[in-house]
Amino acid sequence: MSTVTGPITGFAVTDAEKAAMDTALAAALRGPRGANPLVGAVVLGSDGKQLVAGYHRGAGTAHAEADAIAEARAAGIDLKGTTMVVTLEPCNHSGRTGPCSQAIIDAGVSRVVYAVDDPHHHAAGGAVTLRAAGVAVESGLGAEEATELNREWFDAVRRRRPFVTLHIAQTLDSRIAASDGTSQWISSQESLADNHGLRGLIDAILVGTETVLVDNPRLTARNGAGEESGKQPLRAVMGLRGIPEEAAIRGSDGNFVHLPTRDPAEALAMLYARDIRHVMVEGGSRVLSAFLAAGLVDELIVYLAPTLLGSGTPALRELGISTLADAQHWTWDEAGGGAVRRLGRDLRLHLKPLAATAEDHKDGKDAAEATEGEH
Amino acid sequence: MSTVTGPITGFAVTDAEKAAMDTALAAALRGPRGANPLVGAVVLGSDGKQLVAGYHRGAGTAHAEADAIAEARAAGIDLKGTTMVVTLEPCNHSGRTGPCSQAIIDAGVSRVVYAVDDPHHHAAGGAVTLRAAGVAVESGLGAEEATELNREWFDAVRRRRPFVTLHIAQTLDSRIAASDGTSQWISSQESLADNHGLRGLIDAILVGTETVLVDNPRLTARNGAGEESGKQPLRAVMGLRGIPEEAAIRGSDGNFVHLPTRDPAEALAMLYARDIRHVMVEGGSRVLSAFLAAGLVDELIVYLAPTLLGSGTPALRELGISTLADAQHWTWDEAGGGAVRRLGRDLRLHLKPLAATAEDHKDGKDAAEATEGEH
Repeated sequence: MSTVTGPITGFAVTDAEKAAMDTALAAALRGPRGANPLVGAVVLGSDGKQLVAGYHRGAGTAHAEADAIAEARAAGIDLKGTTMVVTLEPCNHSGRTGPCSQAIIDAGVSRVVYAVDDPHHHAAGGAVTLRAAGVAVESGLGAEEATELNREWFDAVRRRRPFVTLHIAQTLDSRIAASDGTSQWISSQESLADNHGLRGLIDAILVGTETVLVDNPRLTARNGAGEESGKQPLRAVMGLRGIPEEAAIRGSDGNFVHLPTRDPAEALAMLYARDIRHVMVEGGSRVLSAFLAAGLVDELIVYLAPTLLGSGTPALRELGISTLADAQHWTWDEAGGGAVRRLGRDLRLHLKPLAATAEDHKDGKDAAEATEGEH
Repeated sequence: MSTVTGPITGFAVTDAEKAAMDTALAAALRGPRGANPLVGAVVLGSDGKQLVAGYHRGAGTAHAEADAIAEARAAGIDLKGTTMVVTLEPCNHSGRTGPCSQAIIDAGVSRVVYAVDDPHHHAAGGAVTLRAAGVAVESGLGAEEATELNREWFDAVRRRRPFVTLHIAQTLDSRIAASDGTSQWISSQESLADNHGLRGLIDAILVGTETVLVDNPRLTARNGAGEESGKQPLRAVMGLRGIPEEAAIRGSDGNFVHLPTRDPAEALAMLYARDIRHVMVEGGSRVLSAFLAAGLVDELIVYLAPTLLGSGTPALRELGISTLADAQHWTWDEAGGGAVRRLGRDLRLHLKPLAATAEDHKDGKDAAEATEGEH
């Protein structure tokens, strides 16, 4: 974890608090990605010594602040007069685990330094409750790192739909299968391993009924030996056709859902209601195209094999674009493994929508210039 | 120019001769690429001092050896007892310029060190003539560098057909035009500039009649200001349809040819007969596909725009491949600007055929392994 450099204005934090934020960010990464964000918390003694660190271990378990408080109690540490440094604003709601703001007040913590506001509660988050109880509160330390840590989750909560990663494994001429339907394996072993690694980081994987009926994939996250890795994403199939009882995607762990819709927005709403915050859409070409045409893709990962087929199934179909001026423009995304990377004999391309960049990050000028350059 | 490191076995060359080969390689690069190879020559005095350097200035002009001899004469230098270091075996034939082997003998040069054999005359090249006349001859110094310098030319002469570079400017989903035919500009300004730079290095540019009738391109090499650069490639159109009198590709410099055939091999034979050694095929998709299907592509340059169209003209059409096992496999080519490069918002991809690598460079093991990994 790099040293915290986020924008800190209008208040002072100590060097000990900066160091604690580094520790909290590192602790956050120990948790699993999922419906809840990665969060880390560190308790500092009045001498600036880091007493305990906690992190969020996944949906339904204690939040990072509660985890740190429990750690301290188990170690017989008195929290009166301590400072808590945490990567996300303490929550204010009574969900499955009780509000952290109250737990912090009850423990006697006198100061809280957090990185990013809780996006659920812009008007009245935990900070308001803490201040009302006389706890000193500062925010913004490590904001950039903490935001990047949960980029997909923040986007999902803000939009109230899962963050969508589109996955395409294609040839140079953008075919995902030959004309006889053969598609295993267009991508290199290294690309397949990378894809299985991604499956272990997301909440759900989505394909269309056509893919299930034609390819009968398992869609589990597997390691190099073909063994299923620990955490498995929800396996979702969208479409109106029935899924055969013997389809491999059903598996035996109950971690499967059939979404009876052809509408990407509806499918995403169904997934969000099931606490899915990050979904990877893997195919087939009709489903990929439907998400792209609806403007519901946040991230594109293309495994580009140095192979030509000339015919066969195109990766994409009709997007409702008839002239070049209406083309969908994407931009290279250096985050999360880089924009362009060699994976065995393949290239792994990582892109984000140019328009969404402008909307989301107030980067309108760059986007306008880039679009202008097109003509 | 990097220091010469080529394989040198079974004979001794002096440090002065190694340094002279570096100078000769650098001198060679001063010449224009074209129907003849780039060649440089340096004359060394008996004390190892570099007296003069010559290079080949293009088809119909003096060869590098004759150029060096002329330079020496102009400077009043006596060539008796000198050593000539040259990047290619001196020629033995009486073409437009007379054989270099005889000129070297006549000048009284006593030793010749050259890098690579003349591919025209494996049995009886200039080296045989020189040795018969009592000139000491060594070869192989700087062979690797000298071969790379004229890679396309060596390939062309060996196969008796032009080296073929295929150029594709496509979207991520491999479209070269939208469904209404608009295609200007899928690629970024930087990609267009790169393409114009390539046009200045090759002998001919080839498109199909369809491209001429639909897009009416000029196909000249132009600089950033849109001005035509000095050297212009031959503009060739293949196909059976007539080319309108007012077509831009005709130009006014006479540097235009219509090849009345749909057969790529026949088109290449016609170009080779016109002294073309390196042709760039630029489109459209039928011509690109015909060259690929015929296995007549030595190099692929793809400008990949981070853009999606979903429909429109595919870059490639039928290649006669119906199943994945028969896919055409390519491999990344690091030479000539690298395998993968960002050009503005585009990626520039540079590939060579995997099979041709195996055939041409006796690299069968690697190719077999790569193919095996596919399944």
